[in-house]
Amino acid sequence: MFSEIVEIRGKDLESEGWRKIMRKVLSDDPIYEIEELSIGNGLPNRARIAVWAPTREELDIRLEALGQGGLTIVTEPDVQTQPAPADGVFPEAFYSTTNFETFVRLAGEWAPVAKIEMDCTIVIDTAAGTACCVPIGSVKKGQAVVCGPTGVRIEQPKVNDRDKGAFEFMASDVSSEKSKLLVIREMALEIRAAKKAGQKILVVGGPAIIHTGAGPFLCRLIEGGYLDVLFAGNALATHDIEVALYGTSLGVNTQTGAPVPHGHEHHIRAINAIRAAGSIEAAVSKGLLTSGVMHACVTHNVRTVLAGSIRDDGPLPGVITDAQRAQDAMREALDGVGIAIMVATTLHSIATGNILPARVRCFCVDINPAVITKLADRGTHQSIGLVTDTEPFFKLLAEALEA
Amino acid sequence: MFSEIVEIRGKDLESEGWRKIMRKVLSDDPIYEIEELSIGNGLPNRARIAVWAPTREELDIRLEALGQGGLTIVTEPDVQTQPAPADGVFPEAFYSTTNFETFVRLAGEWAPVAKIEMDCTIVIDTAAGTACCVPIGSVKKGQAVVCGPTGVRIEQPKVNDRDKGAFEFMASDVSSEKSKLLVIREMALEIRAAKKAGQKILVVGGPAIIHTGAGPFLCRLIEGGYLDVLFAGNALATHDIEVALYGTSLGVNTQTGAPVPHGHEHHIRAINAIRAAGSIEAAVSKGLLTSGVMHACVTHNVRTVLAGSIRDDGPLPGVITDAQRAQDAMREALDGVGIAIMVATTLHSIATGNILPARVRCFCVDINPAVITKLADRGTHQSIGLVTDTEPFFKLLAEALEA
Amino acid sequence: MFSEIVEIRGKDLESEGWRKIMRKVLSDDPIYEIEELSIGNGLPNRARIAVWAPTREELDIRLEALGQGGLTIVTEPDVQTQPAPADGVFPEAFYSTTNFETFVRLAGEWAPVAKIEMDCTIVIDTAAGTACCVPIGSVKKGQAVVCGPTGVRIEQPKVNDRDKGAFEFMASDVSSEKSKLLVIREMALEIRAAKKAGQKILVVGGPAIIHTGAGPFLCRLIEGGYLDVLFAGNALATHDIEVALYGTSLGVNTQTGAPVPHGHEHHIRAINAIRAAGSIEAAVSKGLLTSGVMHACVTHNVRTVLAGSIRDDGPLPGVITDAQRAQDAMREALDGVGIAIMVATTLHSIATGNILPARVRCFCVDINPAVITKLADRGTHQSIGLVTDTEPFFKLLAEALEA
Amino acid sequence: MFSEIVEIRGKDLESEGWRKIMRKVLSDDPIYEIEELSIGNGLPNRARIAVWAPTREELDIRLEALGQGGLTIVTEPDVQTQPAPADGVFPEAFYSTTNFETFVRLAGEWAPVAKIEMDCTIVIDTAAGTACCVPIGSVKKGQAVVCGPTGVRIEQPKVNDRDKGAFEFMASDVSSEKSKLLVIREMALEIRAAKKAGQKILVVGGPAIIHTGAGPFLCRLIEGGYLDVLFAGNALATHDIEVALYGTSLGVNTQTGAPVPHGHEHHIRAINAIRAAGSIEAAVSKGLLTSGVMHACVTHNVRTVLAGSIRDDGPLPGVITDAQRAQDAMREALDGVGIAIMVATTLHSIATGNILPARVRCFCVDINPAVITKLADRGTHQSIGLVTDTEPFFKLLAEALEA
Repeated sequence: MFSEIVEIRGKDLESEGWRKIMRKVLSDDPIYEIEELSIGNGLPNRARIAVWAPTREELDIRLEALGQGGLTIVTEPDVQTQPAPADGVFPEAFYSTTNFETFVRLAGEWAPVAKIEMDCTIVIDTAAGTACCVPIGSVKKGQAVVCGPTGVRIEQPKVNDRDKGAFEFMASDVSSEKSKLLVIREMALEIRAAKKAGQKILVVGGPAIIHTGAGPFLCRLIEGGYLDVLFAGNALATHDIEVALYGTSLGVNTQTGAPVPHGHEHHIRAINAIRAAGSIEAAVSKGLLTSGVMHACVTHNVRTVLAGSIRDDGPLPGVITDAQRAQDAMREALDGVGIAIMVATTLHSIATGNILPARVRCFCVDINPAVITKLADRGTHQSIGLVTDTEPFFKLLAEALEA
Repeated sequence: MFSEIVEIRGKDLESEGWRKIMRKVLSDDPIYEIEELSIGNGLPNRARIAVWAPTREELDIRLEALGQGGLTIVTEPDVQTQPAPADGVFPEAFYSTTNFETFVRLAGEWAPVAKIEMDCTIVIDTAAGTACCVPIGSVKKGQAVVCGPTGVRIEQPKVNDRDKGAFEFMASDVSSEKSKLLVIREMALEIRAAKKAGQKILVVGGPAIIHTGAGPFLCRLIEGGYLDVLFAGNALATHDIEVALYGTSLGVNTQTGAPVPHGHEHHIRAINAIRAAGSIEAAVSKGLLTSGVMHACVTHNVRTVLAGSIRDDGPLPGVITDAQRAQDAMREALDGVGIAIMVATTLHSIATGNILPARVRCFCVDINPAVITKLADRGTHQSIGLVTDTEPFFKLLAEALEA
Repeated sequence: MFSEIVEIRGKDLESEGWRKIMRKVLSDDPIYEIEELSIGNGLPNRARIAVWAPTREELDIRLEALGQGGLTIVTEPDVQTQPAPADGVFPEAFYSTTNFETFVRLAGEWAPVAKIEMDCTIVIDTAAGTACCVPIGSVKKGQAVVCGPTGVRIEQPKVNDRDKGAFEFMASDVSSEKSKLLVIREMALEIRAAKKAGQKILVVGGPAIIHTGAGPFLCRLIEGGYLDVLFAGNALATHDIEVALYGTSLGVNTQTGAPVPHGHEHHIRAINAIRAAGSIEAAVSKGLLTSGVMHACVTHNVRTVLAGSIRDDGPLPGVITDAQRAQDAMREALDGVGIAIMVATTLHSIATGNILPARVRCFCVDINPAVITKLADRGTHQSIGLVTDTEPFFKLLAEALEA
Repeated sequence: MFSEIVEIRGKDLESEGWRKIMRKVLSDDPIYEIEELSIGNGLPNRARIAVWAPTREELDIRLEALGQGGLTIVTEPDVQTQPAPADGVFPEAFYSTTNFETFVRLAGEWAPVAKIEMDCTIVIDTAAGTACCVPIGSVKKGQAVVCGPTGVRIEQPKVNDRDKGAFEFMASDVSSEKSKLLVIREMALEIRAAKKAGQKILVVGGPAIIHTGAGPFLCRLIEGGYLDVLFAGNALATHDIEVALYGTSLGVNTQTGAPVPHGHEHHIRAINAIRAAGSIEAAVSKGLLTSGVMHACVTHNVRTVLAGSIRDDGPLPGVITDAQRAQDAMREALDGVGIAIMVATTLHSIATGNILPARVRCFCVDINPAVITKLADRGTHQSIGLVTDTEPFFKLLAEALEA
């Protein structure tokens, strides 16, 4: 592809040529790209548009046509080079390549850069009038290395990627290779601001919160007044109560991490104990249940919706086994919620996402990036994904909120 | 947010108001959005722009100002409704909601839709002049259900998501919940077209190709003339030769899937046999190596670059152990490549991505979506990701190419 | 650790020494290991037991004590070596190392092998009486390389891993690096055998079956009479019907893979259409629903349990929204089921696993290994995990069953 | 399957019957299982062995034969029951079921439990002499519920799973649903103990350590004297130096998480700067590099091996580009290492695993369970897997070590 910049000024902005271009630019014709635009009172009333063509000839035809429409063609200066200071070392101001097709301006003409690849530089053979991409290990002392962006033009893929903007790394939403502390601190600030604004905070949680030992950190959030509504299933409540009554979660001692003999029976025994007591609230008021997340929810008036599912044992009293009635209960409890934090549960996260207005700020935390992808694929686009581990997440969030 | 449409026609397109709007529209001011634009010869010379404001009052101020600039305000008609035919059933033409803030035009005014959530409809209380979002299970016979898009306005989030276009599902690149057969057939068409155009096909492969039993399908590609260049490591070649000499891959019988006694020694014995023969080519010509991918590469003149890594046993003769020399060999072999297919290897895929021009069509196949995310995060944006399983992938690709 | 073999024969098998050893061996004392045992009519009545000790001195004390109990100490012969045929090449019969502590018998004594690592060999310095582990690239022509297992003793870790048996690769259950075709063919044989034995086949499926385009292959299983019971949720049925009525799944055209304008509304329109018809069966008999998995289930008398969940839109008529009633329906439908195939659904797989007797053969297919790990962690140990992709899985299974 | 317990005492332990059983027990014949064994001075000299048979008749034949060999048959008492205290509630001492085939002793005979599933109880119909598995929600007040283990016998699957011991949950190694804090505290204790014993600590790390912002926590480990050897690649060192020189990692600001304009060039500029300085050590001594992991390694004498790979840009001076030479350097640096911690790198972890003796304690930390599975599948069985996030891992480890 070949291109030049055309410039339009003053009155010419109302010319036919300008109208033509604008119509094309605004209809996403790939042969025009806005470089600069200023229209209005006090402004220079100037537009710079890049014009592209597959061949030099076609470009010239286009430019001529545009020129008749009152446009000025602007030529760019040649590339600037400096000699490599040593073998294997670039000059400090070297131009760093992308993997897009690249052209350099040599003696007023655009020459393609051979063997383009990313993270290299461009070496000019002035005699031959050619340019070649060179990796750092291959540069020789004294070679003419392109420095600065002048006279370099990259041809970005024209389709699909226009909105992606410039060439960049680490732009995906589901990467696990990012700092979580930063996001968690930001989250803490938003939670405090939301509370100050009178909004409610919702946590949607899966049983891994209990299995991984994050329960005590969630309790600290509740005790600190940072939790208003909890959506969960039978499993989170059951294993939380299992920890309170037996010290195990799914039969694994949460203090030592070791499985306990007959531990696999504990959760069903915990369910039986609460059924015998009548309800979770009754178990708390009778002094049977004295610790854990469910205890904290009862004693701190956290509105709790426990929605049943077909994988439930029991279930506990208070679990809404009918999915439609559970949805309705969740809908009601959403009133006033400003921030939703979804942790370690695909089912409840997507169920909540389904009924959540897009205006509610939404964080989705899971160690598995597929959950976050799935949530976005179901239409909850406002969700900020955080690929991290449940237990450290709640520990760090509690610390950030208490700081 | 409140909004109205303003329209500009004919001469007014050169007015100051229009210039102001265009300047803002083109500078991405979120309070204006282009709805329609036609400028030029033979066209009606008309622009329709949506104007937004946080309050009705502010909107009116803006519109007034614009009106003085020669613009016409266009009002939209009211929503249209039909009665629900039965409890729990919508009229066939019902409006299906998104989770974005939604407004309906009632008696010329925009009324917000209460309790908005996705995949529901809107029920109008004409007496009260209010609108409410209602899930399918809750609609009552005879209620006034909004039908068609007329008079409905959704307020998309203004930041970030402008380029994401409309509300849609399944837009993520790394979802495993998509049909792979379609992509594979498409891939086969592109491979045939590239071959016809004289381009070369590159496969970058990891040892899982051999472990999963996909080797014979890759051989069919080679025998069909669909493979020109192979980038791999010591492991792929070693386990391929292990299969040829011992019938096992990493000690597991590829016919029965069962581990073989002392099988874990086979790969190092295979390496020793090739080292004793002198080279892979020598092993083929001496009749020692008579099947498998490496044998097919030798007998069908596939250009092979085996790049060493620190996890290699051996290595086999022919493996380039110096990373810089291996990169150079890969760079040379890329000449003429039009399509790159990267399968089941993070290391070699990213290494190839690093030196690949963006113009080369690139497919990345892995059962782990994280690999595809990683490749894109390293700048190889042109890669089409395919989250699927190695063995069926090559079986289906071979079948598609042979069809 | 040092060790020797002791042998006990004939009458001595009733001696006190033997009793002591047997008591310890059977109580898992790590200092004794059974090498060989034959007791009974016509057998030589012989036991060979390895005795271990941390030092040579302690070992001698133990052996002396045992000798007084009537046991014979057996000495092993020295290692055998051959010279390396060339630099970088081992003799063909070379001993291939593990990463366990290794000892070689040199002149009747056990000498430790220095610098042990896996996939190398052992070189003997006869003059110095020492042994060293050597990678293939470092061996020099003529060095004395250990060949065969004689006189080599490896000390396996004593704790935890006794049951893991020998050193082996690829022993994990959730690896994606295995041949799936083998497992799928095996599965087809078992399904045919189960049908012949009058057992029923159950498929538990998630909506990804439809999204990925695997629906037609599942229909082929149904038409072939290989499916008796289907457990699914509202989503699988909804998207299947969406494909039948609109050609899309979650709004994505299943023939082209492209999203369709307003496609995100199709599933809720499909639900509305079936609700208007009264039931899925009614939609089939009225000629409204003429293809897809649900249609095949109705026309081939597949017993279907659709269990509701809180993430459901709609739901469709026939979906059991109460989790406890859904569990009961699933329990009833399990009668006579011999094989359960769980595909692409965590919720329904674990729910089914919960109520499935351990005797039912169970396959769990998912592209995400975490699902399979989770199922086993919930007590469904009999499950065979298959980390693969839904669409090729059903295609290959249909082909294997029809072959 | 049917079974009874046989007991052998005193002199009979030398009988032919006993010998027969021991021979079979020790050869893993599934029809015998050791329940209790005591042989030797001062012990009761008693063995209790369970004998199994597929039918009652076969079992009787076996028992008779054994009885002639001098063995005593022990009969177990009947099951004990208590009435259910209310609808939907079990007696507190209820027997909790597994999903294995289960039998209860009723009037001296073993009766099978119908409809067995896990996490339920057994209800006896005394009149009919039958037993049925009942979920908690279905039990009726007054029904005879089995309590305690007496008279209940479960038939575990005989094949494969003998070594898995009892029915248990959460036994898998790669689950992310476990408490990491416990493991990390344990790890800190082991690291302190190893340092006290004069052993060295090795960290094998990938660049995600830097990308996720874990670098400062790793520096705290180095400054605390807890790190002796670092194995890494060009990428970790490059991005660490990129942070030190530009405040970004792969172009993303590590303080704000936002991408920086032209940030994608920073890593190649960082490499160029170090190449110009001559070496990392030179850059430190010249005052160019004043912070970060590499700086800490230089100033605290951490032995560092930087191994090259084909995906490297640059590389930095000091990176060993030849894989075989890099392996040799790693082998040398392993001398004296007692604990290896592998974090967020598949390539370097497996490379290290390959050359690591099994006696070295080994922790593998990755957010992706597949990495841990892969490491074990390559023979590094001694590795403890930790599926968690890099940044919180190092933060919590630093805190645990400093506590």
